[in-house]
Amino acid sequence: MKELEHIVNLLAEEGSYASLFHRCTRGEPLPSVPDLKEIVKLCRSVIFPGYFGVSTTDSASLRYHIGVSVERLYALLTSQIHAGLSFNCDCRDTSHPEAARDMARQFIERLPQLRAALADDVRAIFDGDPAAENIAEVISCYPSVRAVSSYRIAHALLEMGVPLIPRAISELAHGETGVDIHPGATIGSRFAIDHGTGVVIGATCIIGNNVKIYQGVTLGARSFPLDDATGLPVKGIPRHPIIGDNVIIYSNATILGRVTIGDGATVGANVWLTHDVAPGATIYK
Amino acid sequence: MKELEHIVNLLAEEGSYASLFHRCTRGEPLPSVPDLKEIVKLCRSVIFPGYFGVSTTDSASLRYHIGVSVERLYALLTSQIHAGLSFNCDCRDTSHPEAARDMARQFIERLPQLRAALADDVRAIFDGDPAAENIAEVISCYPSVRAVSSYRIAHALLEMGVPLIPRAISELAHGETGVDIHPGATIGSRFAIDHGTGVVIGATCIIGNNVKIYQGVTLGARSFPLDDATGLPVKGIPRHPIIGDNVIIYSNATILGRVTIGDGATVGANVWLTHDVAPGATIYK
Amino acid sequence: MKELEHIVNLLAEEGSYASLFHRCTRGEPLPSVPDLKEIVKLCRSVIFPGYFGVSTTDSASLRYHIGVSVERLYALLTSQIHAGLSFNCDCRDTSHPEAARDMARQFIERLPQLRAALADDVRAIFDGDPAAENIAEVISCYPSVRAVSSYRIAHALLEMGVPLIPRAISELAHGETGVDIHPGATIGSRFAIDHGTGVVIGATCIIGNNVKIYQGVTLGARSFPLDDATGLPVKGIPRHPIIGDNVIIYSNATILGRVTIGDGATVGANVWLTHDVAPGATIYK
Amino acid sequence: MKELEHIVNLLAEEGSYASLFHRCTRGEPLPSVPDLKEIVKLCRSVIFPGYFGVSTTDSASLRYHIGVSVERLYALLTSQIHAGLSFNCDCRDTSHPEAARDMARQFIERLPQLRAALADDVRAIFDGDPAAENIAEVISCYPSVRAVSSYRIAHALLEMGVPLIPRAISELAHGETGVDIHPGATIGSRFAIDHGTGVVIGATCIIGNNVKIYQGVTLGARSFPLDDATGLPVKGIPRHPIIGDNVIIYSNATILGRVTIGDGATVGANVWLTHDVAPGATIYK
Amino acid sequence: MKELEHIVNLLAEEGSYASLFHRCTRGEPLPSVPDLKEIVKLCRSVIFPGYFGVSTTDSASLRYHIGVSVERLYALLTSQIHAGLSFNCDCRDTSHPEAARDMARQFIERLPQLRAALADDVRAIFDGDPAAENIAEVISCYPSVRAVSSYRIAHALLEMGVPLIPRAISELAHGETGVDIHPGATIGSRFAIDHGTGVVIGATCIIGNNVKIYQGVTLGARSFPLDDATGLPVKGIPRHPIIGDNVIIYSNATILGRVTIGDGATVGANVWLTHDVAPGATIYK
Amino acid sequence: MKELEHIVNLLAEEGSYASLFHRCTRGEPLPSVPDLKEIVKLCRSVIFPGYFGVSTTDSASLRYHIGVSVERLYALLTSQIHAGLSFNCDCRDTSHPEAARDMARQFIERLPQLRAALADDVRAIFDGDPAAENIAEVISCYPSVRAVSSYRIAHALLEMGVPLIPRAISELAHGETGVDIHPGATIGSRFAIDHGTGVVIGATCIIGNNVKIYQGVTLGARSFPLDDATGLPVKGIPRHPIIGDNVIIYSNATILGRVTIGDGATVGANVWLTHDVAPGATIYK
Repeated sequence: MKELEHIVNLLAEEGSYASLFHRCTRGEPLPSVPDLKEIVKLCRSVIFPGYFGVSTTDSASLRYHIGVSVERLYALLTSQIHAGLSFNCDCRDTSHPEAARDMARQFIERLPQLRAALADDVRAIFDGDPAAENIAEVISCYPSVRAVSSYRIAHALLEMGVPLIPRAISELAHGETGVDIHPGATIGSRFAIDHGTGVVIGATCIIGNNVKIYQGVTLGARSFPLDDATGLPVKGIPRHPIIGDNVIIYSNATILGRVTIGDGATVGANVWLTHDVAPGATIYK
Repeated sequence: MKELEHIVNLLAEEGSYASLFHRCTRGEPLPSVPDLKEIVKLCRSVIFPGYFGVSTTDSASLRYHIGVSVERLYALLTSQIHAGLSFNCDCRDTSHPEAARDMARQFIERLPQLRAALADDVRAIFDGDPAAENIAEVISCYPSVRAVSSYRIAHALLEMGVPLIPRAISELAHGETGVDIHPGATIGSRFAIDHGTGVVIGATCIIGNNVKIYQGVTLGARSFPLDDATGLPVKGIPRHPIIGDNVIIYSNATILGRVTIGDGATVGANVWLTHDVAPGATIYK
Repeated sequence: MKELEHIVNLLAEEGSYASLFHRCTRGEPLPSVPDLKEIVKLCRSVIFPGYFGVSTTDSASLRYHIGVSVERLYALLTSQIHAGLSFNCDCRDTSHPEAARDMARQFIERLPQLRAALADDVRAIFDGDPAAENIAEVISCYPSVRAVSSYRIAHALLEMGVPLIPRAISELAHGETGVDIHPGATIGSRFAIDHGTGVVIGATCIIGNNVKIYQGVTLGARSFPLDDATGLPVKGIPRHPIIGDNVIIYSNATILGRVTIGDGATVGANVWLTHDVAPGATIYK
Repeated sequence: MKELEHIVNLLAEEGSYASLFHRCTRGEPLPSVPDLKEIVKLCRSVIFPGYFGVSTTDSASLRYHIGVSVERLYALLTSQIHAGLSFNCDCRDTSHPEAARDMARQFIERLPQLRAALADDVRAIFDGDPAAENIAEVISCYPSVRAVSSYRIAHALLEMGVPLIPRAISELAHGETGVDIHPGATIGSRFAIDHGTGVVIGATCIIGNNVKIYQGVTLGARSFPLDDATGLPVKGIPRHPIIGDNVIIYSNATILGRVTIGDGATVGANVWLTHDVAPGATIYK
Repeated sequence: MKELEHIVNLLAEEGSYASLFHRCTRGEPLPSVPDLKEIVKLCRSVIFPGYFGVSTTDSASLRYHIGVSVERLYALLTSQIHAGLSFNCDCRDTSHPEAARDMARQFIERLPQLRAALADDVRAIFDGDPAAENIAEVISCYPSVRAVSSYRIAHALLEMGVPLIPRAISELAHGETGVDIHPGATIGSRFAIDHGTGVVIGATCIIGNNVKIYQGVTLGARSFPLDDATGLPVKGIPRHPIIGDNVIIYSNATILGRVTIGDGATVGANVWLTHDVAPGATIYK
Repeated sequence: MKELEHIVNLLAEEGSYASLFHRCTRGEPLPSVPDLKEIVKLCRSVIFPGYFGVSTTDSASLRYHIGVSVERLYALLTSQIHAGLSFNCDCRDTSHPEAARDMARQFIERLPQLRAALADDVRAIFDGDPAAENIAEVISCYPSVRAVSSYRIAHALLEMGVPLIPRAISELAHGETGVDIHPGATIGSRFAIDHGTGVVIGATCIIGNNVKIYQGVTLGARSFPLDDATGLPVKGIPRHPIIGDNVIIYSNATILGRVTIGDGATVGANVWLTHDVAPGATIYK
């Protein structure tokens, strides 16, 4: 090991990692992948009792399991939201612990709505897929249930203003399912993704109700206005598609830019689209 | 936590989860992701000795390892097949434990054939890929070996009539490799997938011998006949392509519907196909 | 279990696994997926302090963490390089342990350069993505940071002549991110992949500086010259694209064969390309 | 390994292990040390909330934790009692699962009494030890709390007629604390052991209320009547001391045989006693 | 489970656990057995490099390991001292986190002295035991090294005024070794315990230098003055023996009360002593 | 952490740990407590099939389990014997790996004898204890089975000349059971310990057949001849008792020095003995 001491010294020189180092200043919690995975698992287990971890023999004991899961979720979420609030903040804002606890509470109060929304998504997947044999198969096997549940969790956190954590949750689902939905996207009810691998849904997408998307579909940006001063893309501008209600988009289709796909339209596989589509239209080329 | 008790109560109300709850009635085993992962790992370790877990110094002790693995596989498979048989069944059919044990035994009796089939698949991958340096690299590194071994396992279970478990196994491989092969598909010998991410092979596909497929290829359904009564897709109708022997399909090609790709045909990258292709033809657009 | 003894006997017959069995001859270490995962994690933790495992309160203690990580990395790398050197070698070459230790040392001496290269990659991703809010988000959430760091690690090992291990590392990253970069590819500085799922970069690709690639892009081979004697593809021939500096390639584009994409060119989404592209050109069809 | 195959054969010959082998006949559960440890931990956590695992912020959520713990305890106990009932039984008695479930339920119904009894034991330890600073220290640190709680659990199971499991639980506590209380002993309320290592309390001991015992005390048997036929000790005969109320026995004292130590007596350290002691007497030699 | 709901309700009634429940009020850390075990392990690993976890190839890398261990120890100790300060305190004293950090720092600053003291203890054991073959055997195998190192750690914490935690550490060592040394005892240099099981050393003992004690020795209290008001023992009074320098006490000897054993005295096995012993005396009966 | 850097520096100064540091010189394996625990567990599982880990449904599969266990045992033992041979050896003796492998093989060849000896021990315990209900209870619950099996394992290794490892194994059993049997002791067949806590059997003890010992019994040394030169005890001299056949020694008896207890003698509880005892005698005082 003596022979490698000079490399340790090089790697430990502050100049060599200055642009990369994350320094924690006052003992705040750090974003933690295991904790985020457990948060997602707890949410799924509470939302889909009997499938993701809360399995039990009767409804009497289900209440105990939900109670314990919610308490654990409360603690982990408070800590991870605190971590998100502090991660890029030098200001030593002492309101973070209180704010984090408050946001965690608000998120948990939305769990019944999340359950209702995901029940609709599951139903839509089952209704639209001739290969799905029953609801149980959809909930326990379909990656889109995991992708969409993580999206709805991350989106709810982003709406409350939690930094970093929503993106981290969506990337965990991306790694798990190959489906990359930015938590900033707005997605209506009864949303179905089939197969899913390679789907990308950008941060400013707006998607209506009853939309179905197949594997490899990109709802992306076309080009980014550059900032005059820096020459870099301007952040935060609406740049992804608006998808109407009842739209179907087949596999590997690519739709780029702030275009509008009208209600009831169908977009064929491998199509490349950078313009609006009228309601009810079918685009195969 | 007091402040969240009303949410626990809401979430534990039977009405709010009725459509989602999986209730186990009589202490049957539950489908278990860790157990299914172990089943797949045990199969792979027995089929490819020296690569996936059964590693040993000589052929004398290999027999002991295979014996222990087979015994464990027998127990886990019996339990998971039992879980599959019971998962959507209210009838309290008392024949399940016996039937599960019987099916597990039949499956294990097919392991020598599965090994022979996968040895052919491995050879085909090696023969067709200029980047593969030796068989060891193919077995230990190529995701298609994992995807196709899980498919052949899941297909064998589906053929015996095991519910739910085959789909769960194929989705585990989907998450692991990005390759989504429905266990209902029929696939011939010497099947090679290269790179693999984004490949989708539908439930009623029929694929010949010596076929090679690249990443992003979809063998999907075009449209589904709707049931007059429910307005939903009719389940179980043949709706995916038939691929002949010696066919090559390049990356991101999409072939939809009950079309036939003739023996020896070649389908180019990014092609979108919804009609038959003659034997020996080459389709680039 | 008695009823399955004949199957154990069949599976343990040497003839039945001869083409598949990996036999270790003299107690050399075996390639180990958990060890390789730890190697990648240690490299990332040393390169990006504060993000992947080495998290600490101040720069004083950072040195200790880096020292411990480097020592552990040295031991694991030596063992895994030894495993790679021995895996396909019957020659009982007694120089392997020494050679492995030497290569591990050389690799660790390149860590400062790897850190500098990856810092540039991270900066390039941040500069080019309007959705990226800060460097911390890029390092901790973006799968391309994981894919490209694993590529740069695997490429460095391949350059030293380590067999098998580089491919195993790149397939781990493929499974983690859906991005499949062959360690043989040559990639310049400030390399950015966005979203990433389904990207394939072949073994003989040469990619310039400041290149950006989106999800589903294939830089592949078109056809392989067959060996006259065996009828199988000739191994090792340059067969993948050369990409110039400052090129952008949009989602699901497929570029096949030893073609050259000139500096500053743009390739649109879903394009299928098998010919050269002039510098500065834009190809949308 | 080849060189050891003959030893494996020797060790696997039925004759060589016939007297030692435990054969499970019909898939019944086996006694499991990890499961028994978890059973004891669950009992302690329910009895002493906030100390052994059920730690929580308020009494609202305590109910959820107790509910989940009791459900888990019910399942584990049922399985381990079933294992105990089957372990030495060739009769294939099909009533075991039902009986086990019934006994587990009865045991759980006794938990409130067990809590009350252990609260008295804790209080007695605190009252009698000048080194104990508060109740919290006694519950969380004193080995006698662990020894006596395991005894009271094991004794309750033995009273219901559960075979093997009570002894296994008492030996786990013996290993944990150095205190060996046979579950067959009868022990009154407010029982205190100080330090505890080396204490042995035999199977037919009867101990009154408010007794205090120090480390190394043996309450053992003196000699065993031998069976005429076998020449071995007759099993099941009362052969251990009867200890009255309010007795104190100091360290390393040994009391052997079916003698009676009267109420309020004191037995000094290192004393060896094989005769009755009058109420209120003090024995120092 | 329905049939056990009434028991859950009984067990969750506040009245039934009021005297036992530990309620945490404001999110302070709890005393944690795993954390305390890790604290002891870290101390031992830093004090005895190469034996308890910090094992390394050379003295260059030893510094890194010690640095990482000390940082981890600092964090865990701060948290556990905080837990100890808060455990029995309703006053919501906001100075606890600061005080805990300060005490943890002071403790770490004493590690070099602890190492020197323990090196002397190890030497004394080796010098006095004809069965000890070398220092390595003593450090790695002898339970007295574990018992005495835990005592010296716990005693240092008690001296700083840390509540509860020192007792918890000494009871962990008691469970591990059968040796029960109260952290309040005062013990000189070169302290040797042989075999150790059953040794008890009370809270107000004072032991000189170069003392050797065998298994089963009790240095205990004789009787406790009772408080007039409560009838319970008065806490905190000196009540255990004073042992001079160079004393040997053989196995199972019991010495009770505030007696003084003079320098150089020898106490034989199984002796029961409640009076002073002159310097140099030998007591065999 | 900055505030503790000076302590890290002090602790890392070579002078401060010189007498304590274990330096590994050439990458030899280190003695490992987890590996030694697994070695003991493997031995017990092979010797007592169905009790300690090898549990299986029939004798057909038992052979596979024993084969796998023996292979694992071979590898671990080779490595730990190598560690023992190297631990106190500066000579860089290159014969260690070969010698270790040879000794491990010899040990495994003695497993059938060890099984036979332990079967006799188990039988003797059962025959002599009125509380033992069946052989299964003795094997699975009695700590003496664990203590004596570890002794017989450690003794066999010591006889072959393995350094350090036998003592480490006996101290693990000491911690597990409170029974401290030095591996150097010689113990005949049908050896029974009851309860066991506090038993100490010294390195040069010789114990006959059919001996029974109770808790707290010491078979120790009386005084050690001192070396003229060093003033320290001379190592290796016979100094512990010789116990004849059919002897019973009751709880807490202490027998010191090279005395002989004649065949068939009985030693009462708490007796202190430093002289010979005639065959058949009974000593109660």
